[in-house]
Amino acid sequence: MKGSMMDSPLNLQAILERIPKIYPAVEIVSRLPNGSLHRYTYLDFYRRAKALAEALHRAGLQPGDRVGTLCWNHYAHLEAYFGVPAAGGVVHTLNLRLHAQELAYIVNHAQDRFLIVDDVLLPLFEQFRDKVNPERVFIVRHQNEMLPPGTEDYEDLLLTARGGYEFPCSQENDAAAMCFTSGTTGNSKGVLYSHRALVLHALAFSLPDSFCVSQHDVAMALAPMFHANAHGLPHVAIMLGCKLVLPGRQLDPQSILDLFSSEQVTIATAVPTVWAGILESLEKDPGRWNLAPAFRGFVGGTAVPEALVRKLDQHGLRLIQVWGMTETTPVAVCSTLKSHMREWSEDEQYRMRVRQGRALPFMEVRVVNDHGEAPWDGATLGELHVRGPWVASSYFNAPGTEDRWTADGWLRTGDIATIDAEGYVQIADRSKDLIKSGGEWISSVDLENALVGHPAVREAGVIAVPHPKWDERPVAVVVLRSGATATSEELRGFLSSRFAKWQLPDAFVFLDELPHTSTGKLSKLELRKRFANWQWEKAKLS
Amino acid sequence: MKGSMMDSPLNLQAILERIPKIYPAVEIVSRLPNGSLHRYTYLDFYRRAKALAEALHRAGLQPGDRVGTLCWNHYAHLEAYFGVPAAGGVVHTLNLRLHAQELAYIVNHAQDRFLIVDDVLLPLFEQFRDKVNPERVFIVRHQNEMLPPGTEDYEDLLLTARGGYEFPCSQENDAAAMCFTSGTTGNSKGVLYSHRALVLHALAFSLPDSFCVSQHDVAMALAPMFHANAHGLPHVAIMLGCKLVLPGRQLDPQSILDLFSSEQVTIATAVPTVWAGILESLEKDPGRWNLAPAFRGFVGGTAVPEALVRKLDQHGLRLIQVWGMTETTPVAVCSTLKSHMREWSEDEQYRMRVRQGRALPFMEVRVVNDHGEAPWDGATLGELHVRGPWVASSYFNAPGTEDRWTADGWLRTGDIATIDAEGYVQIADRSKDLIKSGGEWISSVDLENALVGHPAVREAGVIAVPHPKWDERPVAVVVLRSGATATSEELRGFLSSRFAKWQLPDAFVFLDELPHTSTGKLSKLELRKRFANWQWEKAKLS
Repeated sequence: MKGSMMDSPLNLQAILERIPKIYPAVEIVSRLPNGSLHRYTYLDFYRRAKALAEALHRAGLQPGDRVGTLCWNHYAHLEAYFGVPAAGGVVHTLNLRLHAQELAYIVNHAQDRFLIVDDVLLPLFEQFRDKVNPERVFIVRHQNEMLPPGTEDYEDLLLTARGGYEFPCSQENDAAAMCFTSGTTGNSKGVLYSHRALVLHALAFSLPDSFCVSQHDVAMALAPMFHANAHGLPHVAIMLGCKLVLPGRQLDPQSILDLFSSEQVTIATAVPTVWAGILESLEKDPGRWNLAPAFRGFVGGTAVPEALVRKLDQHGLRLIQVWGMTETTPVAVCSTLKSHMREWSEDEQYRMRVRQGRALPFMEVRVVNDHGEAPWDGATLGELHVRGPWVASSYFNAPGTEDRWTADGWLRTGDIATIDAEGYVQIADRSKDLIKSGGEWISSVDLENALVGHPAVREAGVIAVPHPKWDERPVAVVVLRSGATATSEELRGFLSSRFAKWQLPDAFVFLDELPHTSTGKLSKLELRKRFANWQWEKAKLS
Repeated sequence: MKGSMMDSPLNLQAILERIPKIYPAVEIVSRLPNGSLHRYTYLDFYRRAKALAEALHRAGLQPGDRVGTLCWNHYAHLEAYFGVPAAGGVVHTLNLRLHAQELAYIVNHAQDRFLIVDDVLLPLFEQFRDKVNPERVFIVRHQNEMLPPGTEDYEDLLLTARGGYEFPCSQENDAAAMCFTSGTTGNSKGVLYSHRALVLHALAFSLPDSFCVSQHDVAMALAPMFHANAHGLPHVAIMLGCKLVLPGRQLDPQSILDLFSSEQVTIATAVPTVWAGILESLEKDPGRWNLAPAFRGFVGGTAVPEALVRKLDQHGLRLIQVWGMTETTPVAVCSTLKSHMREWSEDEQYRMRVRQGRALPFMEVRVVNDHGEAPWDGATLGELHVRGPWVASSYFNAPGTEDRWTADGWLRTGDIATIDAEGYVQIADRSKDLIKSGGEWISSVDLENALVGHPAVREAGVIAVPHPKWDERPVAVVVLRSGATATSEELRGFLSSRFAKWQLPDAFVFLDELPHTSTGKLSKLELRKRFANWQWEKAKLS
């Protein structure tokens, strides 16, 4: 027997339609490339997102058509975040830190029909423009420069809207957004977020035991909007009607702290590297910034050092650790304390706060190893699996990737973890193949595969080595073919045609042989052990 | 194009399965009929709810089968709240304040296959037992008395579970709970809540801008569990893992305050009458109770007087006004303040806090009158319509009630309201036909229809008259047939065969004629005007 409740889909149109009725006057603040602040109201945003939806509709956008964005975090990107899905399309955020060649692959694989590009990112776009074929390209003009031939002004696109347009009502399982992950081997893979997943994620994210987000908060989307929905913060803010701050491309600690202070930000999400930089600035210049009380900083991407959490607490900046990935929209677990933990000692509380945390409502976690599901004892290691309504069940058009899911429907995360008796997940070993550098992922297997393409290279292993600034950086360990020669510079140059500069190994080590497992595979574990005490040269620490 | 997210239903099983993993040790406290407190843990609750589910499954429960409950608020009722839906059944809460005849109608109409009945309510059950035909009746034995023939001990039912049972996975639109509303004319009508509606309601209820419920809260389900899901609080508590207090049948202010104090309750929901009684006790006995800081009291059912809100604030008890109905699961709007209102004067803030409030996320409201949709100006009156994922779209098996919904899919609430420019709903006139007495509804039309069944009565109108204790009580205005005679006592006796005692009019007024509208209908508006200054005799104020 079915319930007799209304069939009322959870979609982004429903979130948008609250704005003119309930939150028209709330502010959205964007840092522009020239450093100035752009301010407008939620009502302005609503009208422009609606104009974008209508304009795309008039331009022939069909349900499910992808619209790519190559933008920093600002109001126009936000308009695309909501206007594209509200028109029935899929907003596909392009990671501007990728190599042009990978961007071309992604745009083509996603079949992006339209592109929206920041003028300040035109140099990057020009690097792959001849390899992609979007129907139209719209430029967000922050500077008053000439448009390249064959592109159009984003503002002119909005002017084609005549008004009177009504959003279509998306079904909640319709795709709304798309983001590519380059987490593992091979090509980047696309995750298609449904309206439902974005909405349920926003609801669970906002709960008091997660980030406790209210209309009274001032939210700053510090994580890039091209990175897993900017950790979900734009959807949370627009759903709840809280003031939203978008920092543009100025992501140095001082620019961020200036915005925290001037806009009285109360919640922001970022990777540990960013928080570490913020701490350094706060310590260097005490009293310079006036932070809002009850500031909560969401920290994800890699494990956060306990010392960082303790020190930021002293500045009134409370970090909350999370774990998630592009495939989980992204937040799956969160490490706020339970009620009985209030009675614990300070040290015990910190020990829990730096774990990745417990599963959000309706999210399930488990750890599986060769012996089956591991007990929740805080000690038994295994691969972390997750399941829930905002977890991807497949990649977009990626045959051969089905083994990322178990037969009983869980996502294999690739991370090695424990779960303790309180239900808190702790990532014990980083996922085996990935290097997490400044919050971005670098696939060691991709680098290895590329290196062995060099005529002089017999075998190559790339491992993550701890780095004081970037968390981890890649080091390549190479065995040359008998009689062949190659220098670090040569290999670096060889890779640079396929990888972005920050993805390249910081060092190349030449050995006669690499360690192997019993089944003949390269033993990353053994390799990591050998380089556990790696010392960076001063020059590589910048 | 569909999103590629997992098909992971929002159901009560998902909420239950978090308990053994994340919140096993949290307490559930119940007041038993003898006044003592019953305590057990979430893990105990989980095991017993699961045993109930298995036992019902073994007893032959089929998907969608209704299991009626005639119980006060306590642990066993909570087990039925979750164990029945988790077994695939529908928990049907029976309103123990109804007349036995109406209860019989409801049990039969719902086709309740099994019943769970408090031993202390056996006298009520015996009044209609011969009119209903449940397959089995399970008695929750609080007292150690003999079971009536043909009934079984609830504990014996649980003992039939052998373990190893796994909950079926309900689809989220499956019915989970059922509650009858007697809001309007005619027979009571059943609302079938889906798993999805209960879950989404719990998520929206818990948001910081609604009731901001966390695992750190201590929630007390003060509203009866047979009344619109106890305002949703049991689902909220079990989803979040917060300590839950169930007050049993001891609903006098002192018993409630004793629990508030001893269990350090931080959130409770009740009708204004209950809060008024609590205020009276607090004022009479200052310092006797030690309330938890940051106590939030949810108040719904009827509009709350501003004086009550102000005075309870002085006792650290912050009331939050809501509006909703059985058909809306029940909370649809809630009157927490927006961020810019913090700068308003205290008087302005109170003015907003006693409005019914703004729509929760994904809930829509509008006011419609003869001129169409009313502007949101805080002045234009019309009927309040609501739409959203936890609003009923029909009644259970009730042909002829389709006109409660508009052609475009909104529920006509029957309440006359305004919406202001901030989006806050205010119920200006009570729904035309209903009398709200102590949080319960009395249908004036039902009383009128019954009265005109008396041989001496020509026409009757029943109106709500303000009452200092019960908010409203019914007064019947009667025109006798020419030459006929009847006394108040006689009419009262005539009605008492069909209505519970508290539903009977407190006074009968005999007139020569009743006012009518231009279309010949009884003018309730005019009648209310004439009795606007009604003075109760001292005897009627008890």
